[in-house]
Amino acid sequence: MEEDEITLNVGGTLFVTFRETLSKYPTTKLGSLSDSSPYYRKRKNYYFFDRNPDLFNTILDFYRNDILHFPSHVCSGLWHQELRYWGLSVSAISECCYSTYVKYSNDDIVIQNLRRTLDEGSEFTQGHISLNTSDSKSDLDVSNPSDQSLNLRSKFWRCLSNPRSSTIAQIYNCLYFLMVFLSALLAIFHTIPELRSGDRDFNTDLNRTEIYALLRINTNNRKEVDMGTKEFPLWMIILDLLLAGFFSVELFVRIMICPNKKEFFRDWLNIMDVILFVAICIRFTIEQNPEWFLLSYDIVILYGVTYSVTVFRLFRFFRLARQFSGLYVLLLALRSSWKEFILLFCTVLLFALLFASCIFYAEYREPTTFPHMLSGLWWAIITLTTVGYGDHVPKSAGGQLIGSMCATCGIIVLAMPVAMIVANFNDYYQKNKDREKFKELYDFEQKRKLVTLDM
Amino acid sequence: MEEDEITLNVGGTLFVTFRETLSKYPTTKLGSLSDSSPYYRKRKNYYFFDRNPDLFNTILDFYRNDILHFPSHVCSGLWHQELRYWGLSVSAISECCYSTYVKYSNDDIVIQNLRRTLDEGSEFTQGHISLNTSDSKSDLDVSNPSDQSLNLRSKFWRCLSNPRSSTIAQIYNCLYFLMVFLSALLAIFHTIPELRSGDRDFNTDLNRTEIYALLRINTNNRKEVDMGTKEFPLWMIILDLLLAGFFSVELFVRIMICPNKKEFFRDWLNIMDVILFVAICIRFTIEQNPEWFLLSYDIVILYGVTYSVTVFRLFRFFRLARQFSGLYVLLLALRSSWKEFILLFCTVLLFALLFASCIFYAEYREPTTFPHMLSGLWWAIITLTTVGYGDHVPKSAGGQLIGSMCATCGIIVLAMPVAMIVANFNDYYQKNKDREKFKELYDFEQKRKLVTLDM
Amino acid sequence: MEEDEITLNVGGTLFVTFRETLSKYPTTKLGSLSDSSPYYRKRKNYYFFDRNPDLFNTILDFYRNDILHFPSHVCSGLWHQELRYWGLSVSAISECCYSTYVKYSNDDIVIQNLRRTLDEGSEFTQGHISLNTSDSKSDLDVSNPSDQSLNLRSKFWRCLSNPRSSTIAQIYNCLYFLMVFLSALLAIFHTIPELRSGDRDFNTDLNRTEIYALLRINTNNRKEVDMGTKEFPLWMIILDLLLAGFFSVELFVRIMICPNKKEFFRDWLNIMDVILFVAICIRFTIEQNPEWFLLSYDIVILYGVTYSVTVFRLFRFFRLARQFSGLYVLLLALRSSWKEFILLFCTVLLFALLFASCIFYAEYREPTTFPHMLSGLWWAIITLTTVGYGDHVPKSAGGQLIGSMCATCGIIVLAMPVAMIVANFNDYYQKNKDREKFKELYDFEQKRKLVTLDM
Amino acid sequence: MEEDEITLNVGGTLFVTFRETLSKYPTTKLGSLSDSSPYYRKRKNYYFFDRNPDLFNTILDFYRNDILHFPSHVCSGLWHQELRYWGLSVSAISECCYSTYVKYSNDDIVIQNLRRTLDEGSEFTQGHISLNTSDSKSDLDVSNPSDQSLNLRSKFWRCLSNPRSSTIAQIYNCLYFLMVFLSALLAIFHTIPELRSGDRDFNTDLNRTEIYALLRINTNNRKEVDMGTKEFPLWMIILDLLLAGFFSVELFVRIMICPNKKEFFRDWLNIMDVILFVAICIRFTIEQNPEWFLLSYDIVILYGVTYSVTVFRLFRFFRLARQFSGLYVLLLALRSSWKEFILLFCTVLLFALLFASCIFYAEYREPTTFPHMLSGLWWAIITLTTVGYGDHVPKSAGGQLIGSMCATCGIIVLAMPVAMIVANFNDYYQKNKDREKFKELYDFEQKRKLVTLDM
Repeated sequence: MEEDEITLNVGGTLFVTFRETLSKYPTTKLGSLSDSSPYYRKRKNYYFFDRNPDLFNTILDFYRNDILHFPSHVCSGLWHQELRYWGLSVSAISECCYSTYVKYSNDDIVIQNLRRTLDEGSEFTQGHISLNTSDSKSDLDVSNPSDQSLNLRSKFWRCLSNPRSSTIAQIYNCLYFLMVFLSALLAIFHTIPELRSGDRDFNTDLNRTEIYALLRINTNNRKEVDMGTKEFPLWMIILDLLLAGFFSVELFVRIMICPNKKEFFRDWLNIMDVILFVAICIRFTIEQNPEWFLLSYDIVILYGVTYSVTVFRLFRFFRLARQFSGLYVLLLALRSSWKEFILLFCTVLLFALLFASCIFYAEYREPTTFPHMLSGLWWAIITLTTVGYGDHVPKSAGGQLIGSMCATCGIIVLAMPVAMIVANFNDYYQKNKDREKFKELYDFEQKRKLVTLDM
Repeated sequence: MEEDEITLNVGGTLFVTFRETLSKYPTTKLGSLSDSSPYYRKRKNYYFFDRNPDLFNTILDFYRNDILHFPSHVCSGLWHQELRYWGLSVSAISECCYSTYVKYSNDDIVIQNLRRTLDEGSEFTQGHISLNTSDSKSDLDVSNPSDQSLNLRSKFWRCLSNPRSSTIAQIYNCLYFLMVFLSALLAIFHTIPELRSGDRDFNTDLNRTEIYALLRINTNNRKEVDMGTKEFPLWMIILDLLLAGFFSVELFVRIMICPNKKEFFRDWLNIMDVILFVAICIRFTIEQNPEWFLLSYDIVILYGVTYSVTVFRLFRFFRLARQFSGLYVLLLALRSSWKEFILLFCTVLLFALLFASCIFYAEYREPTTFPHMLSGLWWAIITLTTVGYGDHVPKSAGGQLIGSMCATCGIIVLAMPVAMIVANFNDYYQKNKDREKFKELYDFEQKRKLVTLDM
Repeated sequence: MEEDEITLNVGGTLFVTFRETLSKYPTTKLGSLSDSSPYYRKRKNYYFFDRNPDLFNTILDFYRNDILHFPSHVCSGLWHQELRYWGLSVSAISECCYSTYVKYSNDDIVIQNLRRTLDEGSEFTQGHISLNTSDSKSDLDVSNPSDQSLNLRSKFWRCLSNPRSSTIAQIYNCLYFLMVFLSALLAIFHTIPELRSGDRDFNTDLNRTEIYALLRINTNNRKEVDMGTKEFPLWMIILDLLLAGFFSVELFVRIMICPNKKEFFRDWLNIMDVILFVAICIRFTIEQNPEWFLLSYDIVILYGVTYSVTVFRLFRFFRLARQFSGLYVLLLALRSSWKEFILLFCTVLLFALLFASCIFYAEYREPTTFPHMLSGLWWAIITLTTVGYGDHVPKSAGGQLIGSMCATCGIIVLAMPVAMIVANFNDYYQKNKDREKFKELYDFEQKRKLVTLDM
Repeated sequence: MEEDEITLNVGGTLFVTFRETLSKYPTTKLGSLSDSSPYYRKRKNYYFFDRNPDLFNTILDFYRNDILHFPSHVCSGLWHQELRYWGLSVSAISECCYSTYVKYSNDDIVIQNLRRTLDEGSEFTQGHISLNTSDSKSDLDVSNPSDQSLNLRSKFWRCLSNPRSSTIAQIYNCLYFLMVFLSALLAIFHTIPELRSGDRDFNTDLNRTEIYALLRINTNNRKEVDMGTKEFPLWMIILDLLLAGFFSVELFVRIMICPNKKEFFRDWLNIMDVILFVAICIRFTIEQNPEWFLLSYDIVILYGVTYSVTVFRLFRFFRLARQFSGLYVLLLALRSSWKEFILLFCTVLLFALLFASCIFYAEYREPTTFPHMLSGLWWAIITLTTVGYGDHVPKSAGGQLIGSMCATCGIIVLAMPVAMIVANFNDYYQKNKDREKFKELYDFEQKRKLVTLDM
């Protein structure tokens, strides 16, 4: 019986098993061992492998039990290496240990996403590998060209695009966000009727009522009357022009000095800037010629559209994300949660439609509530999200029963996909926090080394 | 003293203990060791077991301490094997380690549930085991019959029932959901009074008021007047007929080609389809003969019931779940959380009743609020769920105190069962995600192997 | 140098360290080793300990580094044993590993709580220990007395107090909860004015207005008029009497057959039953003599108090908790979260007071909102809990700014203590779930054994 | 081949690898091993290191695979030591294991924060180290001075500043919080119009209307009329004076006996106390001379400001935090979550601005809703936080669509930063709970030891 036993020395630790156990899988490294293999140590009658013995028990257990169960405390990155070394297929893994095995791949996606977006242009670019190599590649790919002007241009470009590159870049960036914030404030001020200065001069003989009719203004709606026929005060117009000027100049400078035009127009934030520039030009032109409003209703519509487009200027805030990693991580997490968003959308729509139908028929006999199913749909969504405005409230006992179910269902149905989105965010956020902490610890170690060398 | 010591060689690692320690449990494998046992190696004076030495310390600790404490990093599936091999009873497990031990069984239920529902008909059917065996069983059980027509029928059946089987199935499925979505939209349009075309012609000499009286319509309720006495426009009727026709034909085709009728009618979605078909037939018949409404009020009720039944057509959306695994997993998680739902229902009802009583007596002296306890119940549920419509609001100081408690309690009391439901969902969702990730990694390995073989 | 080395054989694995390392702590077991100790094996020149070698590295590391770091995968119950065996003080534990060490004690509290309340009277009483001993102690302490009647009495008692004891107990329990549910329904019906049958006959010559004045009824408050001067319909009175009778008889039977009177009156549910009985007697007496109402206003108040006391009958639902472990676990978790409740109460009160003051001064110039700070307090609590009735809404810009902060703060401030309460609940709930799963697995193993024995 | 192998004995366990593997990193301890090193044991031909063998496999794996993967079950505090001992750089760590490595540093920050704030003045000051040393340092630094009066003063100071120091301190503290609570109640009572006693006597011949005009009181606003021209009842004035007296005396005593004045005025709670004292003095002076109100409107404003300042007296509740560790931990967690607060603020503002713009343009045609974008902003925040007052509700279909998106987005966007804040709180709270539990276990062990010694 004893001659059947085979001894393996893995990194110093001895493992003993039966030869027949290993020969079950003859195509693997362990299954094809023989005295002529380079691992055989004749003198001691064992096979020596220069591997981690901690992980070998799990590998050997596969030969014993025909299935792989991974211990959860070993980083699954090691398992990928280990399976490849011993020539085992991933299909040997037990389903209960899938999560242990795929964790590494999942983490890797998160790390790759973070690295691609946050390290761009920073010193800490390629993770641990770049730490060992001393030359900073990121510097080279920009400063190589001997042409002085190109060099200046690229420096300027970095200043505009990467706020973390220099102090000037940071100051410029703060200015930029002040401008975005001002333009958001201005958009709000535009809509406050009290701030309008006086009636717009349409250069026409028509009286007010005729103008209202031409502009199709509902005179009961003060908003339409004010926005359609009153003028902005001078300070607003000046501020508006200033902001429009700033962003236009900024856009043209960026287009001109951009090293890669194709890449530039692939970024939706840049395309938005161009659209905003066109829209603001049209808006100013029409505003300068108020008589155009009376020429055709299409002008009014065009003006309305260009005006509404200005909502998009708020998206410039997303450039802030490049500076503030927390917000960027949030956006990354939202982008990687598209499956959960579809799920959220489907469940909310499904349950809202269901409760909308139910509430309409339950409240059919109530004369004052839920005039049609659309109002039921609105009510259902507002109840599912536990907002509960109270503009539509069921009054009959049946309706209230359905309302109670809707409110309770809402909490459950929304909590589930939201919890998954939060879990995704948590993955990104914690990984990012760990990276930042690690950089700190690394910098600390480097400093200590320098101090030690100095002494 | 030394002769008392016994040496065990488990997978290459030596373990030493006292003989009396092992003999405490003489009915187990280790307790009954003797020189004549097949595990004894006389030459080296030890017992050899071809097992994983990592786990043996825990087993040996049971003999030393009379209790089993499991380390949490080993997959508990291994422990099931290990306990059986060494002949130990599960009753030896310490209560603090129950969760480590039962984790495997819990995970197994989740995996079985996922496998049964999501892998049906796919290539990746029986998990890791099916991966090793090369013949696809799932194909055989359908395509075996030599009869050509039956083969066609079964192919057709797969196309209708499993959207992932082929491209045609996918296109058909998209069409199907477009139809369901259209029917949901139509149900909403039906209820919008503005879209009604004109008064229904009841083929009668009675005037409007008499008709209203016969139909028992509350003339203050515009919904009843519109739904009861106005006609749908032509485009709605045509769309309604088209949709009804599509679903009817689809139902009959499915019934006819279904390989197992008994199984077919066990699926509640199919039963619902049949009920919907009957309801829509009755509805159309009555609508074609508006004079019937005036014959008897029972007809009006019948029409109302058949009309309300159409709410169920929204449940056809649940067929979508078969395509979109996220939604299916959500439904699975909801189904497996029935205990938590009962808990949620009990706690909400209990606290709602409690706060309803309290608020009624606290607001007893306020003439305008909470006319009876039912309104208090409605208020309590809407406050516990933090919806807060504001249709019932306590006005007295005592009532507001109870309202504050109700709002705070609501958050706590609901958060607890909902957190458990979310945890269940998380189990299913993560397991499903891991499976999908694993399939990806497996496919990647297979491809790499093929490439290696080609070279 | 080599003579300084000391070799330790712990359960078969060899450990080598320097003698001076161990002698740092001479009062511990390892620090006081010498050739004369019983652990010394002269022939092999090592010390043998029959302990788990997995845990010994951590112990030895204490001698090397003067601090104990626990690996997190080993059940901390083992560490308690290990530290005691090797004579180390808990003060040696590093602060970063406190949580690993105390986990066992925390879990133990949860397990003890669950065991005390849920296993009472069940077969699975003392956990794993009772599983090894074959005689069921729980049966003995009740059935021992030879007196037949006492035996019957105790059986009857178990039937009433422990619904899981027999089928009859379960049926009786269902009946009991039907009764509780009926009494809850009746309490609601009592308050619905439409269900009142007619004016109460006060046996007096006074007219309505004089009666209203005597009863101090606000005639604008329909609730007071209805509840004070109208009669219940006959069916309600009969149902009321039936329910009161049932609960009274049930109470007296329970008091009589209760084996331990002292224990009985320590349970607040039983005291409540007695109070309810007294209250209902007074209520019925007054209701039978409506002329008493006019004698003195104290009678009216007494009636009101006894009537309000009936709210407590809802607490009978908590008896349900003894049957439904989920609800019991929820109550246990709530009880063990009293610290978190104080925290929740403090933070809510603190922030509510803060925002109440702020909103009052911010809205001071608005004539229609927040007449005093109490309304601000009510508003603040309703906003912090995100209920948002809308009965008080800030109108000024400053008020809306404070409102926005209040709403956002509310989410954060409430989420924190609630998350801790949910975490406590999760501990209890998961432990309970694991216990139930374990029982299942244990029963399964027992059955399999029986089957094996039968063969 | 065999001469290439090198054997390492780490704490008794043998590890074998190739010499060339180790020589890859010649600057590290293992890379520079030679026969002349003090670790070499010639007789047995191996190198002996007195280290934990459990961790050595990971170290050796770095030489084999050029990357470090940490197992997650070992406390990362050990890894810091281990890397330093073997001379490896942290840059060797794989990115997937960052979180395992930085966990120790993160925990350390939490522990340091807790220690600094909660152990101040307690016996359990310096963690495990102070436990070994027997002399209580905290006592010395106060009681050293031989001067009797100074000693008394410092005792008095401790009594005032540290409620856990003695029983008298606890009683005094309870009194203090009763006073704070009373002052909060009084602030509420001040604002209730019903509690005002009568018209204030301005010592003037002007009639009411003229007074209203001088004080610029809006007579439609009952709050202004009451607060501006009516007097407090006597009991309120007395209570006010009493409370003001108590806090003033308390402040002066604290300033006088404070051992370190500089430190004293660095605490914002003390500065607040001084400000409150000044404010209350001004308020009382003005109130005593009601004719001053009519002299100048500036006096009215000054009075209003000093009155509003009293809101800050609520912050005195934060002194409670020093007593109740739960609240203190909550404040610590909030302070350490400033990054998450910025994130929360940014996302809420960004999404609120976005939805405010969208809703304004979507509801532009509705005459009754959203008069300007500021109301849209208020609506958006109240909807994002799911409060939903219902004072602004979209009416058009487009507005309702945006409202639905806003409600759903709100849940997601708020859940993410709030979850991170809760996670931070959880870190602090659990660590604090573990510390308290540990102290309990430690005290228990100490008691047991004493009992053992006594015997």
